[in-house]
Amino acid sequence: MTYFDHNATAPLLPQAEAAWLAASRDHFANPSSPHQAGARARAELDRCRERVAALLGAAPEEIVFTSGATEGANAVMRHFAAASGGAACLLSPVEHPCVRAAAEVFWKGRVRSFEADCAGRVKAEDVAEHLREARPALVAVMAANNETGVLQPWEEVAEACHAAGVAYLCDAVQWVGRLPLRVPAGCTFVVGSAHKFGGPKGVGFLRVPREAEGFVAMVGGEQEGGRRSGTENLPGVAAMAAALDYTVTLAKNGAETAARGKWRNNFIERLDPMGVKVATGGAPTLWNTVSLIMPHAPNHRWVNQLSRRGFMVSTGSACATGREGPSHVLSAMGLPPEEARRTLRVSSGWATGEDDWHALANAIAEVAADLRNQGRSPVIEIP
Amino acid sequence: MTYFDHNATAPLLPQAEAAWLAASRDHFANPSSPHQAGARARAELDRCRERVAALLGAAPEEIVFTSGATEGANAVMRHFAAASGGAACLLSPVEHPCVRAAAEVFWKGRVRSFEADCAGRVKAEDVAEHLREARPALVAVMAANNETGVLQPWEEVAEACHAAGVAYLCDAVQWVGRLPLRVPAGCTFVVGSAHKFGGPKGVGFLRVPREAEGFVAMVGGEQEGGRRSGTENLPGVAAMAAALDYTVTLAKNGAETAARGKWRNNFIERLDPMGVKVATGGAPTLWNTVSLIMPHAPNHRWVNQLSRRGFMVSTGSACATGREGPSHVLSAMGLPPEEARRTLRVSSGWATGEDDWHALANAIAEVAADLRNQGRSPVIEIP
Repeated sequence: MTYFDHNATAPLLPQAEAAWLAASRDHFANPSSPHQAGARARAELDRCRERVAALLGAAPEEIVFTSGATEGANAVMRHFAAASGGAACLLSPVEHPCVRAAAEVFWKGRVRSFEADCAGRVKAEDVAEHLREARPALVAVMAANNETGVLQPWEEVAEACHAAGVAYLCDAVQWVGRLPLRVPAGCTFVVGSAHKFGGPKGVGFLRVPREAEGFVAMVGGEQEGGRRSGTENLPGVAAMAAALDYTVTLAKNGAETAARGKWRNNFIERLDPMGVKVATGGAPTLWNTVSLIMPHAPNHRWVNQLSRRGFMVSTGSACATGREGPSHVLSAMGLPPEEARRTLRVSSGWATGEDDWHALANAIAEVAADLRNQGRSPVIEIP
Repeated sequence: MTYFDHNATAPLLPQAEAAWLAASRDHFANPSSPHQAGARARAELDRCRERVAALLGAAPEEIVFTSGATEGANAVMRHFAAASGGAACLLSPVEHPCVRAAAEVFWKGRVRSFEADCAGRVKAEDVAEHLREARPALVAVMAANNETGVLQPWEEVAEACHAAGVAYLCDAVQWVGRLPLRVPAGCTFVVGSAHKFGGPKGVGFLRVPREAEGFVAMVGGEQEGGRRSGTENLPGVAAMAAALDYTVTLAKNGAETAARGKWRNNFIERLDPMGVKVATGGAPTLWNTVSLIMPHAPNHRWVNQLSRRGFMVSTGSACATGREGPSHVLSAMGLPPEEARRTLRVSSGWATGEDDWHALANAIAEVAADLRNQGRSPVIEIP
């Protein structure tokens, strides 16, 4: 199997697996237990928190461990909607379903949005204009899009929000572990999921500023400084820290990301003569992702044909599979529904090699030939 | 180390570890992805759901996988508070902090309670009376108490709630995997956490009835039939299913539970001459738990002394460690604060042997002698 669906989830890194097993065996005790085994688990949890914080450029007391980005986004949206005093929530039109749906549920009738360009990229000036005109209580603009990999000007948005004194939620799920990240002051809340960068499923982080008084994701045993109750998932956290360490080191290495971007771009060039278009045109994207408009057939047929040949690519966000109609991201880009139905997402990982990209291009050429021929032959009905 | 703090968390069972590793390696793909690897992960998730449902006596479509019982309790409390139309929530006085705190936050000013006996046991008739007099929108009575192991008449409570048509939340965290469990019709919601019965941390289940329309724990990608968004933690779920299978089989075996209850009772008998009392008297408890009122010194000194000798016991709920004042459970039992401060929780697991109980009794005898002698010697102030 050649796996090109890393934006849906990444395979577990060996160092994450080792960390999970070590913590499960050596530090299985409850970090809140008063005995020595509990104290050792607590110390290990503290070490993991310091490590994660350092890798994100945040302070340890700002890091809250969660079950993933969906939990973090739900908690932030719920908290701010209750504390907003009737003000609106401003979302980019390409946010992940967990941000969009949480905004719609908790800010019912108070969700505002603005336009993206034909690559799905928003402008920081548009956010700044909204901040001046109809001051929202919370802004959400993701760092990099999950369906297309398009990079958003999130650092400028953070700056504008910081200057205006408005809270900003940054969904950094696809950015973390792929490009360098230092959480700037304006990024009030940052959410991430370990399984997107080679950590285990069911664990993530949420950056909460010290000054976010009364912020609580879950109530109960008052773990995580009272901000997220529930027995701490130390093996998951330790594995996340290991995966973050490994991928952040790579992400900081410009030569590594440039090489991988080049393999992806060479792949795109090879597809051009087959009538394949890049949905985001020339807009800057994550080095690992490309959103392709395929010829001849709808995307699900491409997925099936490539899947049978051992190549795993996606129709779009796994979080929206099975939903009717084109994705809100492609709609925001102004892609006609007919093209949206032919859109494939291809997303690589750190372990994806140049040969994998070549092999995928070859498989696409084969499938293109098959589909083209099928399109030409008359359909024979078997009675 | 001899571990007697299973009510805080249990070590990971070897079969759970194996299931986690197998799922992480063989089924790492996102179950919502449209390719073959995604379909295989989806099939494995379905198999796990059927297995967990069968072990709990529920239907597969009633099982929602969560990050643990705290998430489940928070979601149920939030959902019903919003849908209650001003009616109250009725809680036993010995509920876990995740149920109590969620009730207090979401049902502000509308939380009612009732009395427990001196063992912390409630009466189903008291619940029935409340159902007749001031019909609540939701009732919460746990199956077995986390601090004392006392068994509640939860099946009768479920019956009374079912007859009255009132929703019932059963916190079965300490019961699951220790005693047989068949979810009766009246148990509207049941929450459990895998790590309490030898599964991994960060995963749990919530039983939601088919008719609970509009119930959503988290919004976003609409996983879990739209009732709990977020990428499914398949390795965690597979490991939970394996741990549940192993422990439920043991829990159904009356000879296994009886033998372990006897070891615990023999241990209690050995402590009697040392001036140790059982906080719950003769009330029926889980076979693994005993709440002890120790002589000579406050409980934290006992924990430390036993911990140094390699025995891990607890002062009470790990979810309340560090909080000031005596636990609400011991207060509800009418235990004087002075005795509450001397209370230890000892909780064994399936792998705890008769020899472990003997060794703990010996260690307690040693510590008792030390503490008694220290109590007799005058305190020498070093200037």
